[in-house]
Amino acid sequence: MQDRSSHRARVLRYGGDAGARVDDQLAAEEPLEIRIAGQPLTLMMRTPGHDRDLALGFLFGEGIIRSADDVTALTVVPNGEHADLENVIDVALSPSAPGVDQRWQRNFLSASSCGLCGVSSIEAIHEAAPPLPDDDLAIDPEVIYGLDARLRAEQAIFARTGGLHAAGLFTLEGEPVAVREDIGRHNAVDKVIGYAAGRGLLPLDRHILMVSGRTSFEIVQKSLQARIPILVAVSAPSSLARDLAQASNQTLIGFLRGRSLNVYSGRQRIQQ
Amino acid sequence: MQDRSSHRARVLRYGGDAGARVDDQLAAEEPLEIRIAGQPLTLMMRTPGHDRDLALGFLFGEGIIRSADDVTALTVVPNGEHADLENVIDVALSPSAPGVDQRWQRNFLSASSCGLCGVSSIEAIHEAAPPLPDDDLAIDPEVIYGLDARLRAEQAIFARTGGLHAAGLFTLEGEPVAVREDIGRHNAVDKVIGYAAGRGLLPLDRHILMVSGRTSFEIVQKSLQARIPILVAVSAPSSLARDLAQASNQTLIGFLRGRSLNVYSGRQRIQQ
Repeated sequence: MQDRSSHRARVLRYGGDAGARVDDQLAAEEPLEIRIAGQPLTLMMRTPGHDRDLALGFLFGEGIIRSADDVTALTVVPNGEHADLENVIDVALSPSAPGVDQRWQRNFLSASSCGLCGVSSIEAIHEAAPPLPDDDLAIDPEVIYGLDARLRAEQAIFARTGGLHAAGLFTLEGEPVAVREDIGRHNAVDKVIGYAAGRGLLPLDRHILMVSGRTSFEIVQKSLQARIPILVAVSAPSSLARDLAQASNQTLIGFLRGRSLNVYSGRQRIQQ
Repeated sequence: MQDRSSHRARVLRYGGDAGARVDDQLAAEEPLEIRIAGQPLTLMMRTPGHDRDLALGFLFGEGIIRSADDVTALTVVPNGEHADLENVIDVALSPSAPGVDQRWQRNFLSASSCGLCGVSSIEAIHEAAPPLPDDDLAIDPEVIYGLDARLRAEQAIFARTGGLHAAGLFTLEGEPVAVREDIGRHNAVDKVIGYAAGRGLLPLDRHILMVSGRTSFEIVQKSLQARIPILVAVSAPSSLARDLAQASNQTLIGFLRGRSLNVYSGRQRIQQ
């Protein structure tokens, strides 16, 4: 399909060059409906592109599939007069897939795995995705220092629009496996994890996930489900993101800026 | 209640001062369940504080109430062993409130108002919240230029944590009415609109909304529902945010940085 990841915009710019008309590029945002066997499951806003990866990653994150093997078909469905938009994806599940359970149906969508306090939220996550086992990973901080620049270098849409979140999957040597962008930060993570799921790379227990913004509880949850041991962000984690990473034996790094970073949990994987 | 908006964290810092242990403050993230007459409606992650405003603003944004008059009681409910957490709010609606309809029940939560393409999404929004009428507002760009600094000056939690979104409601003269922070950008907007709803300030047709990050479709939607004519952001809008603002006769400004800004729609309200 054509690249619909950004749109052109006419803009009036004030400032040094007051009232100037300029052309600008805006990051695209469009609805995507995911269906299971023809039944609408969810309707999300996303930046078009890598939609199959997004659908796979979303279904994995919601516990509806455990791997790409649980998907027997994933089809872009023509949608009436908007057939060209490719905004509907229909997924057929294998009989052995976990599928959509009652809890999901009861509206507990993105909060599906939360309890009513931080501790019960973490316990609920660990029922589906237990903490990581101990490992002998030892990362040279020099590998981490380069990651923000490598992520930014791969952000094609951001370069045009200045308006997107990014998530990147890297090897333990700092080589990029996949970098994806989206107007929604969770979508960017779903896209990289979906990419990995579709290529049989799960579990990602020898990989690093890097995100462009802040780290929320949900992003740590998604990385844990994919068994990612090292999570790096440009900005700060939330308190509950830190608590979950700590309780899950994950290494959580924030405020990576050039050659400076903060380690919030799992320091044993960082070489001294 | 005590201030639970940020938590202390022990952090290991690499960089100029490699391996130093420092104390840091993390923005708090905790679940909040909203119930209608005792029935769970949604469970969201939010930064504690101004929870009643958040609940009011959320219900207003979802079309479940039209004003604070539709709420007869809003109570923080003790939650078993976690009574001190204040993480459950129960809302009693008046018989005349729109309430929770079938569509909402069918999982179309945050995407409740989307169609399957940008045009149908905008049409769906306009059924509930029509475009703004023409008005004679004429804003001096000098008022806008100051807003990013004023927003930042009011961001108490950000100053401690470096990790929160903010939304601020300002008068047409640039005076702050309410500035709220949250780990979720939509929550910050719900908190300021809920604040205004609770004080009988709706419609906000003589106000400016300023947000700290990017402008998504959903943020334009929320501002339109509150009848806000001027929406200002530090970063870029998405394509669909721009389309909705344009179709709704709203003034949309982005990339406000000191004395520079971009006008994406509604330039008639900016003095030349």
